[in-house]
Amino acid sequence: MARWEGNARGRLERAALELFDEQGYDRTTVAQIAKRANLTERSFYRWFADKREVLFGGGEELEEHLVAAIDATPAGTGALPTLLAAFATAPEVFRPREFLQKRSAVIAANPPLRERELIKLASMSEALTAALLNRGYDQQTARLATDVGMAVLRLTTERCMADEQADFAQELSAGAADLLAVAADGVPD
Amino acid sequence: MARWEGNARGRLERAALELFDEQGYDRTTVAQIAKRANLTERSFYRWFADKREVLFGGGEELEEHLVAAIDATPAGTGALPTLLAAFATAPEVFRPREFLQKRSAVIAANPPLRERELIKLASMSEALTAALLNRGYDQQTARLATDVGMAVLRLTTERCMADEQADFAQELSAGAADLLAVAADGVPD
Repeated sequence: MARWEGNARGRLERAALELFDEQGYDRTTVAQIAKRANLTERSFYRWFADKREVLFGGGEELEEHLVAAIDATPAGTGALPTLLAAFATAPEVFRPREFLQKRSAVIAANPPLRERELIKLASMSEALTAALLNRGYDQQTARLATDVGMAVLRLTTERCMADEQADFAQELSAGAADLLAVAADGVPD
Repeated sequence: MARWEGNARGRLERAALELFDEQGYDRTTVAQIAKRANLTERSFYRWFADKREVLFGGGEELEEHLVAAIDATPAGTGALPTLLAAFATAPEVFRPREFLQKRSAVIAANPPLRERELIKLASMSEALTAALLNRGYDQQTARLATDVGMAVLRLTTERCMADEQADFAQELSAGAADLLAVAADGVPD
């Protein structure tokens, strides 16, 4: 069992996901989530600022982890390879696939959660771009590499969710190859 | 003077932008915006659902325009070239550069506007992906091409805002070449 599953935060996340799935996001209260997780409302707010946050726990840790991984990349590594190497070490992948699948479906079905997800992704992009700037890349390259790196990460996550046998690192490489094919198509020979 | 400048909507947009810039987004009311534009609050709500919407007017038209441009692309055009060709026809570029620069600064400085912008960009991405699906591309290619196409568009807009002499279509091509360089770097030879 993965590290995150046994703790209070993980229990709240799973309880929230179940309730959002069963009765919808709007009709679910923080009190219900806490009750389902056998915890108090007060413990809920120890972990999450509000109901919307409950599916985005761990985002800051992931961001910190990725920034540290970027900082640790050998000098001279290209901007996109730096990001891909960092993604390959992301602890997010240790979460059970079923959790990620259900989470993804619940977010897609609820506009307030989709908005929050967009904000979280934008925040992560900013952190990655800043980490690349710190490595000496110029602003435009850092931002462009981040945008395309995030596109590859999204594609990879999608493929890993769809295929139980998929290997995250291999899918990252495959995604980078697909990116190159799409990009090459955009420039006349 | 560009088409959009003379109308009520354009006046409301410019008034809002001035006020957000002068006194901040939070302290500006719809009544103040309407007054500055010499219009009533009622006319404001004829054009915009709320205060946040005022800087995103024209987004739906742009979306429709781009989808139509994608549909009109000759058969056999690649996914990314289809998007780039559509972007090259975007009427957005006819807005005065100073308006776009000020708008961009005001959005960057105000979290509620940044959130709304993320939602608008996500909505545009969905429309573009759907238009590419409609052209026969598979879901993953359509989405990947949209993600990278939007990254090139963002870079292009930024460069055009920074350089008065920049040509939008030329900068799109340059952005596509930069994208290819970043993408090629991500795949081992």
